[in-house]
Amino acid sequence: MSVDANDANLVLVRHGQSQWNLENRFTGWIDVDLTAQGVAEAHSAGRQIREAGIEFDAAWTSVLQRAIHTLWIILDEIQAPWLPVGRDWRLNERHYGALQGLNKAETAAEHGEDQVLIWRRSYDIPPPPLDRDHPDHPRFDRRYRHTPPDALPAAESLKLTLERVLPWWDSVAAPALRDGQRLLIAAHGNSIRAIVKHLESISNEEIVGLNIPTGMPLAYTLDRELHVSEGGYLAGEDAAAEAAAAVAAQGRAAPPVTP
Amino acid sequence: MSVDANDANLVLVRHGQSQWNLENRFTGWIDVDLTAQGVAEAHSAGRQIREAGIEFDAAWTSVLQRAIHTLWIILDEIQAPWLPVGRDWRLNERHYGALQGLNKAETAAEHGEDQVLIWRRSYDIPPPPLDRDHPDHPRFDRRYRHTPPDALPAAESLKLTLERVLPWWDSVAAPALRDGQRLLIAAHGNSIRAIVKHLESISNEEIVGLNIPTGMPLAYTLDRELHVSEGGYLAGEDAAAEAAAAVAAQGRAAPPVTP
Repeated sequence: MSVDANDANLVLVRHGQSQWNLENRFTGWIDVDLTAQGVAEAHSAGRQIREAGIEFDAAWTSVLQRAIHTLWIILDEIQAPWLPVGRDWRLNERHYGALQGLNKAETAAEHGEDQVLIWRRSYDIPPPPLDRDHPDHPRFDRRYRHTPPDALPAAESLKLTLERVLPWWDSVAAPALRDGQRLLIAAHGNSIRAIVKHLESISNEEIVGLNIPTGMPLAYTLDRELHVSEGGYLAGEDAAAEAAAAVAAQGRAAPPVTP
Repeated sequence: MSVDANDANLVLVRHGQSQWNLENRFTGWIDVDLTAQGVAEAHSAGRQIREAGIEFDAAWTSVLQRAIHTLWIILDEIQAPWLPVGRDWRLNERHYGALQGLNKAETAAEHGEDQVLIWRRSYDIPPPPLDRDHPDHPRFDRRYRHTPPDALPAAESLKLTLERVLPWWDSVAAPALRDGQRLLIAAHGNSIRAIVKHLESISNEEIVGLNIPTGMPLAYTLDRELHVSEGGYLAGEDAAAEAAAAVAAQGRAAPPVTP
């Protein structure tokens, strides 16, 4: 697909490298910040949007600082820190349950390489849940205090992630887009996958193999019925594919497990 | 007045030094950014709030980047970038009309020292308005596109500033506070004056002499009828008075006018 930036009314950006991406740890809902490289990726994303000349009416992000900071940097780069910004937990990363905080090697040591592959590659098998009394359980976190504790996940498959992203899409983004608003969304690998799967009608099998590159604005032109008429990475498909391959390789770059 | 930070449900912060404060120019609605000192003042404000242990349910700011950036820095310092943030032009600085961009010396040269004193010290005499076709008129600025052009000021007295801040207070802040929410507001000298005048029933004569120090969180405890039961600067009245005196002196520090 290609994109004509003049008509784009939706731009999705996955946040750049976070401290735990760097350490190769499952992050999920743990609120780690961007690294210096992640900050640079956000500036690059902002410059791409500015150079494409895309303007927005509103911006959305999650309640996790790596996405919020990415958005702030982009808003500065496009000289629009005054844009209305909404934050919604339903745009958070997939909740990785009891895997959160473990690095890929520790996970493999604890659960076996095969099981890790199943969790990474399956559409609907969630990792082991976080104990309800674990201090990291979202019900203890002030930012989720207005959400009924039973609506808060303790572990999610990609399918479960979609099942909370899409109600947000239907109730917030879709009406705004139908109303003619142009939206910028700074979010996470799996919340963006959920939106892309929905927009491009990607199958369950295919979506788990789709890697969203970090810091690469993905622009869509949606018609008033919200069908995609154009879509693509502002940096071009080749640059995006290269960046996506680098992200995919990260998951395989875990140091060898030593006993 | 004193303040018990445990009960505070409203904190007001005036943004720190901007580039045009430094150059001693009338800024108003011109969207200049913070200087390095202004950034440091915002961090200091954030640390004061964090050390006082005050938590919030929502934050508000203007649509001008020096206030927005002040808020972002504070949100990071209090580890709550996830707080919902509202932006409203009615929290903007007083519109300084045709004086915007002039430094204090240029203004005195153009309009006379006496006239400048009248504009600075009067409650209800606005400066000369910006021409309706001047490129800086807010009706040409995308951020005000949802506001009817006739509602947008081209010059404001302090009285006119109050007359657009208080409808915001009544329709947005007051209902939230009555509902038990705790609010953080990062704004400007004159929009904060408007709120303080309203809360503390300060006379028209007195309010023009009240200088709000920059980067000094002013915390209030309001009861459900929104009467002030406690209020004061977190840094203490002495430190705040000293900072306010420094701000007041700024206006007198213009270099002598040479012909």
